[in-house]
Amino acid sequence: MLERDSSIPLHRQIRQYLEKKIDSGEWAPGYQIPTEKELASLFEVSTITVKRAILDLVQSGKLFRISGKGTFVNKIEETNLSKLVSIQDKLGKEKSYPHKTLSFEVINPGKSIAEIMEINEKDKVYYISRIKLDNEKPIVIENSWVNQSLITDLKWEDLEDKLLYNIFIKKYGLNLKKAKVYISSKVAEQSEAVLLNVPIGEQLLIMDRITTTEKDDVVEYSRFITVSNEFKYYLEIDL
Amino acid sequence: MLERDSSIPLHRQIRQYLEKKIDSGEWAPGYQIPTEKELASLFEVSTITVKRAILDLVQSGKLFRISGKGTFVNKIEETNLSKLVSIQDKLGKEKSYPHKTLSFEVINPGKSIAEIMEINEKDKVYYISRIKLDNEKPIVIENSWVNQSLITDLKWEDLEDKLLYNIFIKKYGLNLKKAKVYISSKVAEQSEAVLLNVPIGEQLLIMDRITTTEKDDVVEYSRFITVSNEFKYYLEIDL
Repeated sequence: MLERDSSIPLHRQIRQYLEKKIDSGEWAPGYQIPTEKELASLFEVSTITVKRAILDLVQSGKLFRISGKGTFVNKIEETNLSKLVSIQDKLGKEKSYPHKTLSFEVINPGKSIAEIMEINEKDKVYYISRIKLDNEKPIVIENSWVNQSLITDLKWEDLEDKLLYNIFIKKYGLNLKKAKVYISSKVAEQSEAVLLNVPIGEQLLIMDRITTTEKDDVVEYSRFITVSNEFKYYLEIDL
Repeated sequence: MLERDSSIPLHRQIRQYLEKKIDSGEWAPGYQIPTEKELASLFEVSTITVKRAILDLVQSGKLFRISGKGTFVNKIEETNLSKLVSIQDKLGKEKSYPHKTLSFEVINPGKSIAEIMEINEKDKVYYISRIKLDNEKPIVIENSWVNQSLITDLKWEDLEDKLLYNIFIKKYGLNLKKAKVYISSKVAEQSEAVLLNVPIGEQLLIMDRITTTEKDDVVEYSRFITVSNEFKYYLEIDL
């Protein structure tokens, strides 16, 4: 069943086998997968090799373990892409979105960021890097560049588990007009793998959001880097 | 500059170097990249190694060549995701969307497709596999499963460069209500690489579309497999 002459390591071949079972729906959410011993004898490899494959899938959120009970297929949560741009507490009370702020600084944008934001390389932007958490688990890396000429006087303390849009609207009274969200993908490099707690090479979904105000100024550019295994992103369209 | 002890082949390291230049915008669309000779001497490798890296990027659409002139950075086309679900010739004359039909058959859906379509595994569906072309270049693999109880009597000839939605509406008078589009990513396997003419391992964007009628029946499920290098998919949202 495994290709022993392949350049693909055995643990990754096993991981791919398990992923197919999960992705095809043959192993549904909640399904208890075979034990490490059973898999090791099925593939004729050591339990260490099997353990490595399973750990990768636990890390990436496809499987979860209950100690003393076994390993199970995780439920995939669905997230509407429109959440990326919604202002969720427009009317109600201030909601809290757990974030860990990694950095907050005022910088000159590089050439490509300046082009995206339609500003000059000598202008100033806030560079904000945060990790969005879900039950203390890192789920999205959010890197944002915010136009300082529109959002003056932003402080580290202002961020505090808040969505950028809410800060723009509530603290600065800005009228947002439009968001354009580009979708692409990449595989996790070391730094992303560490921050999102997934294996290097894991498939990541990238969403690049550019937000303009009523006056057609670009107020921010954000790059959302997210694991696509555990969360399924969708959009819903009326026909 | 290259890591000669790395398990990543040199040609792929060079490819990554070139990709960074392009993706960062340092090399803009239309920019003429250094010659193979120049790159070979820069990296201290053979021109064969450089050629391989460049060919990969030409295949995936990031670069293009003009014989006798050189190699240039390609322009990335932007595609609005809403195009995936739009009925583009609702009013006007029948537009043509070049497709190559690879297969058309009546089958029983597998377990996972039946679940998605909310039908029984014993029901019948059309399985349609097509390649969408742009200037004769393959750009999207479209695999569709169509509910035969709603679309009776569909024939190979009906497809002919038409969008499924247009067939549903014009030929069958169906009222479509809603589309849900899931977004994910994967790397190209051999079969996909061949069909899309990209290197194995290339990043692909997957869009899974489920379309329901006014009566809340699922009329079709389509999986669009597309190269994300050459086309940038986006959505635009009013705030």
